Amino acid sequence: MSTALKVALAYHEAWKSRDLERAMSYIADDIVCDAPAGRLEGADAYRAFLSPFVQMLRSATMLAAFGDDETALVMYDAETVPVPSAPGAECVTVRAGRIVYSRFLFDRAPFDAARRQAV
Amino acid sequence: MSTALKVALAYHEAWKSRDLERAMSYIADDIVCDAPAGRLEGADAYRAFLSPFVQMLRSATMLAAFGDDETALVMYDAETVPVPSAPGAECVTVRAGRIVYSRFLFDRAPFDAARRQAV
Repeated sequence: MSTALKVALAYHEAWKSRDLERAMSYIADDIVCDAPAGRLEGADAYRAFLSPFVQMLRSATMLAAFGDDETALVMYDAETVPVPSAPGAECVTVRAGRIVYSRFLFDRAPFDAARRQAV
Repeated sequence: MSTALKVALAYHEAWKSRDLERAMSYIADDIVCDAPAGRLEGADAYRAFLSPFVQMLRSATMLAAFGDDETALVMYDAETVPVPSAPGAECVTVRAGRIVYSRFLFDRAPFDAARRQAV
């Protein structure tokens, strides 16, 4: 298995089991993440993005995961409290065992709708 | 290169060059596609989904593409008329040279916002 994929899968397993600290151990201090709402820079910003997701997570299922030495691409489905099926895809660049760049994709529409309903 | 990836890339090149008919030649008649707004069944439904996207497409750039014999996973960024950066990810199952299943992921939020602004 490719180095990048190993890290991406270990990171996935960590957040899937709602272990935020273990998940963050695979995130580089200077991570750059292009997420739907914009660019996140640094591990603190990434933690502030990941933490509420982990808190509302019920379960996750990997749909496909591939990688080479430096890049991994995964797609999963996630069951969350507000959104029953919230698939995501992440394309990550890994260096020295940590994710240094992530292109993070999910559909914000059902989360926005759930938020409007909750107000 | 894996069979599934070859088909996924040929399909991608076709819609990227706005050739809807060539793109559809890689789509099985009985395709099932789980898209953000719900399940699409059959090539006609898929065409009705892909056609307006192709019409508003300005350019697309592949970010990562992987696959094995049956499955391919790709992520790309797309520049469209209403949304300047509209990344997408597709996890496809390929049989006999055609896509029979697709899990299709993009963020609907900026498209919804552009539609509201246009009204």
